[in-house]
Amino acid sequence: MGLTIGVDIGGTKVAAGVVDEAGNILETSKVPTPQTTEGVIDAIADAVRTASAAHRVEAVGIGAPGYVDDKRATVLFTPNLTWRHEPLKDLVEQRVGLPVVIENDANAAAWGEYRFGAGQGHDDVICITLGTGLGGGIIIGGKLYRGRFGVAAEFGHIRMVPDGLLCGCGNQGCWEQYASGSALVRYARQRAAASPDAATLLLGLGDGTPAGVQGKHISQAARAGDPVAIDSFRELARWAGAGLADLASLFDPAAFIVGGGVSDEGELVLEPIRKSYRRWLVGAQWRPQAQVLAAQLGGKAGLVGAADLARQG
Amino acid sequence: MGLTIGVDIGGTKVAAGVVDEAGNILETSKVPTPQTTEGVIDAIADAVRTASAAHRVEAVGIGAPGYVDDKRATVLFTPNLTWRHEPLKDLVEQRVGLPVVIENDANAAAWGEYRFGAGQGHDDVICITLGTGLGGGIIIGGKLYRGRFGVAAEFGHIRMVPDGLLCGCGNQGCWEQYASGSALVRYARQRAAASPDAATLLLGLGDGTPAGVQGKHISQAARAGDPVAIDSFRELARWAGAGLADLASLFDPAAFIVGGGVSDEGELVLEPIRKSYRRWLVGAQWRPQAQVLAAQLGGKAGLVGAADLARQG
Amino acid sequence: MGLTIGVDIGGTKVAAGVVDEAGNILETSKVPTPQTTEGVIDAIADAVRTASAAHRVEAVGIGAPGYVDDKRATVLFTPNLTWRHEPLKDLVEQRVGLPVVIENDANAAAWGEYRFGAGQGHDDVICITLGTGLGGGIIIGGKLYRGRFGVAAEFGHIRMVPDGLLCGCGNQGCWEQYASGSALVRYARQRAAASPDAATLLLGLGDGTPAGVQGKHISQAARAGDPVAIDSFRELARWAGAGLADLASLFDPAAFIVGGGVSDEGELVLEPIRKSYRRWLVGAQWRPQAQVLAAQLGGKAGLVGAADLARQG
Amino acid sequence: MGLTIGVDIGGTKVAAGVVDEAGNILETSKVPTPQTTEGVIDAIADAVRTASAAHRVEAVGIGAPGYVDDKRATVLFTPNLTWRHEPLKDLVEQRVGLPVVIENDANAAAWGEYRFGAGQGHDDVICITLGTGLGGGIIIGGKLYRGRFGVAAEFGHIRMVPDGLLCGCGNQGCWEQYASGSALVRYARQRAAASPDAATLLLGLGDGTPAGVQGKHISQAARAGDPVAIDSFRELARWAGAGLADLASLFDPAAFIVGGGVSDEGELVLEPIRKSYRRWLVGAQWRPQAQVLAAQLGGKAGLVGAADLARQG
Repeated sequence: MGLTIGVDIGGTKVAAGVVDEAGNILETSKVPTPQTTEGVIDAIADAVRTASAAHRVEAVGIGAPGYVDDKRATVLFTPNLTWRHEPLKDLVEQRVGLPVVIENDANAAAWGEYRFGAGQGHDDVICITLGTGLGGGIIIGGKLYRGRFGVAAEFGHIRMVPDGLLCGCGNQGCWEQYASGSALVRYARQRAAASPDAATLLLGLGDGTPAGVQGKHISQAARAGDPVAIDSFRELARWAGAGLADLASLFDPAAFIVGGGVSDEGELVLEPIRKSYRRWLVGAQWRPQAQVLAAQLGGKAGLVGAADLARQG
Repeated sequence: MGLTIGVDIGGTKVAAGVVDEAGNILETSKVPTPQTTEGVIDAIADAVRTASAAHRVEAVGIGAPGYVDDKRATVLFTPNLTWRHEPLKDLVEQRVGLPVVIENDANAAAWGEYRFGAGQGHDDVICITLGTGLGGGIIIGGKLYRGRFGVAAEFGHIRMVPDGLLCGCGNQGCWEQYASGSALVRYARQRAAASPDAATLLLGLGDGTPAGVQGKHISQAARAGDPVAIDSFRELARWAGAGLADLASLFDPAAFIVGGGVSDEGELVLEPIRKSYRRWLVGAQWRPQAQVLAAQLGGKAGLVGAADLARQG
Repeated sequence: MGLTIGVDIGGTKVAAGVVDEAGNILETSKVPTPQTTEGVIDAIADAVRTASAAHRVEAVGIGAPGYVDDKRATVLFTPNLTWRHEPLKDLVEQRVGLPVVIENDANAAAWGEYRFGAGQGHDDVICITLGTGLGGGIIIGGKLYRGRFGVAAEFGHIRMVPDGLLCGCGNQGCWEQYASGSALVRYARQRAAASPDAATLLLGLGDGTPAGVQGKHISQAARAGDPVAIDSFRELARWAGAGLADLASLFDPAAFIVGGGVSDEGELVLEPIRKSYRRWLVGAQWRPQAQVLAAQLGGKAGLVGAADLARQG
Repeated sequence: MGLTIGVDIGGTKVAAGVVDEAGNILETSKVPTPQTTEGVIDAIADAVRTASAAHRVEAVGIGAPGYVDDKRATVLFTPNLTWRHEPLKDLVEQRVGLPVVIENDANAAAWGEYRFGAGQGHDDVICITLGTGLGGGIIIGGKLYRGRFGVAAEFGHIRMVPDGLLCGCGNQGCWEQYASGSALVRYARQRAAASPDAATLLLGLGDGTPAGVQGKHISQAARAGDPVAIDSFRELARWAGAGLADLASLFDPAAFIVGGGVSDEGELVLEPIRKSYRRWLVGAQWRPQAQVLAAQLGGKAGLVGAADLARQG
């Protein structure tokens, strides 16, 4: 098969791109995420039409936020959009006249990293994405692992703290409440409120108040040596690494790949995650240990992964 | 292939049995677990020799406590015996002249349940064993999932409580400290000490003191309606079910199988586990849900599973 | 001294009453809580003026939400109103021409229960109030214990769960997030969402959805035997009792008094609180144990207590 | 009153000393702690006899480990010795012919620090002692606060972590499991086991294994900059400070005094405790804050305090 289109339906934008079999993106487009299902399908159809004018595309892969069923056809549930049992595959196929594959967006990103990014050369990798929440995907034996009903790898919602923080999912103590970009901001704001004197640099990057601290400020402050920002990254890493140790006990992969906006900070966050991971890894001295690698594709992983899943059919 | 021998190296005894391709045990033997590696190998060789006299056996499968490497040949580590990188497959093959497969004992038990017990008819099942500790195994697509290095499915040591109970593994808060036969006894003793008046029945089954309460007393008292015993089972179930919900988020299996001595109590423990599982299952209303089934093979699962793994080679 | 006026500044209303030396309320008034400091002072002045027409009053005691300084004159901080270092005593004295005492509202309520309610006959009692949040007060040696700076007895914000639920105070895991009327509603909603079939009665009292469940529904359903409602009270009691056990380790009082709206349910909630308290009380068999009593004055405790504190000067 | 004798019954030795009204120790003696009650009384009597030969002493104060009743006469319970409702005051008075006061040893130490150490000048102080366990005492209005039944200030057993570490008291998650010399050693051993490369210095001070790490090694390594040792102190401080913040919410003292062997390290441990305390202090910006001070009397605080309590009668 030749070229395929990858689509990434995000919370704020729908990105689409023409991707070749080596994972290169030949052309991309991006529109704000419409509020209705029809709007989203229109946006996808538009992107496919535009791309088809310049390229010969043979299939469409779509990364959607939420649960996707075992047939990769129906979106069972999206937390942010209002889709409930939405037959997205059929709806899009009818519009674009090409074979369509639907996949959970974090799964698609994991597949992208496995095929063309940090996962190359490993057949058993687990990817976690530290963005607003915490998502991820599992590759076992060179295949995307989807579970019996299509909803495996919902990493963000394993319970890290009994009776812990409320999560949007209705439970308490979910991993993503402790290891995600949102958690990082919370850590920094709490610490800046408790120790404003130590957080002068961090606070100065925002509006001077803890509530004004944003993720980008924390990164910038941490690189400049701000102790509160560094401590916030360390706290995030403490929880991220502990969760990776749990995943190692369960999945025993060859490698973990850490992606998402938080991971853009590179070793600033990767190194403390590795340290925490090794701290909590059970039986560390008696077992070969999975590596903890930085993702390589950045925000393109989902689009590229979706396109490649469409190619594989 | 015809008959094979399954061996289960337990903490107190080494059990062996001749098993046919339908999972029937034709003959068994049992000896106290020797203290040395040589002793264990002698015991296995003796069992094979005896069995070979009466049956034509073609392979030997051994379930061993601890980490088994990805080649199913070397025991990397056993917590109870002193094996460290023990080449058990070679050592036994040299003695018995038959092909040998080594497998983690909980993995072998999971395989037994999948092939001949509660897991029949499902290709994606997770088995947890509530014994002294908490073990388990994973079947994905009809195959035993071993991870990249052979040490997957170490369920007992995922962290349920940050800064929680000390575990023999060196970490704190491991699942098996909260969901296992040992935990059940601890729950009952603590409750009996705090409320001796409510625990009259339970205490009377032992020596009258909390320290005298054993697992069998708790089962007996619970069946007789003792509130402290019932509450202890409920506490165990609270933690077991919460962990199953985490495993559902990660693996999304078709079914869970709950085995081990604790599960001998049947619905007394299964029903509260199901309730807790559903309580914590993320997105329960939007996804097909894995069933929670009682194991069917009891203490024979490991032996039968090991024999079947040897048959499959 | 003869009659005094007690004022209770609540989140929704300002209540005032003329109280005699036996704790009897001779006359009361109530107005919606004004939004400004001036409005609140006007309301207090109006109430004093009206009461003075019919009674000869000699002092005013005011229970205010928030921190009150060691001189009982200045409100350092109110979470709900916007007072910061508000010299409330001076402001009101200038208006009403009577001596004024300011006290934290939960302290005032505790004093009321000590003097005229469940605490009579004990010189060392601790009162906790399970309302929207969790407040309380401490009586030591027959005196209200205020701490060095006036801000003792902030029970609601001791940490029960590390990395636990976010609290309005900025910390996580505060006791009032687990033991309060708000917590009770959260417990019931979570349980009803997870097990709608078991919560038919409870859900039917509201609008049929978990979000429609209110505190009064939980009480009504629990009295009717609804398992989800009963379990929600039990969960509340689990945390309330564990906290009382901590307070016993620290203060070793003669009695605990449990008040607030939640305690209106009487033994439905008191009995499980006692059970949990005894479960966690350290060294229970070696020490005299504080009783756990139900408050007797209901919502009037604060007003009566404030009036009595004014009488004592 | 002139001179009095202070006695400190420790787990390994019974120390006695003649103390003047300024808290000066004029003479001391020390013997290994006898195993029987009679032996302990003999040791006390011997010490009094010897001291009486050289000094005119008028009363004896005894600090005993465990619960002491409200009459300061009977030891209700000692965890280490086997005393249960032991009438220690009467037994010793009959032998020595002097008035005797019994006090909990941590209370006596707190009193010593209040009168002659770090607490001078404050009338409301709380002392915590970080030794093998965590003990402490409370001074309110210049008086030792004992609670209604004599067993207040059992700080070590408030619950910091639900379902946390087992404690000798039978409960789980007690503060002393996280903030004490024993906890410090556990932190260091766990970290050294997980990161032996980072702990070269620390491990080298012992026998090279994590199990060989002792408290003195951690102090020495931390002073030399060992990251694992420093991190262990920081972990201890994290829990100690969080608990102090809880005590501030409850007691609102003028100052905290931190004593015990761990505090011998001075600012190495005090500064991170202060930082953690401020991190968790509720309403920090709206309230006067208690200082966190280092104890000044070291291991003599209990003896001096007991002697002074005897003087006060």
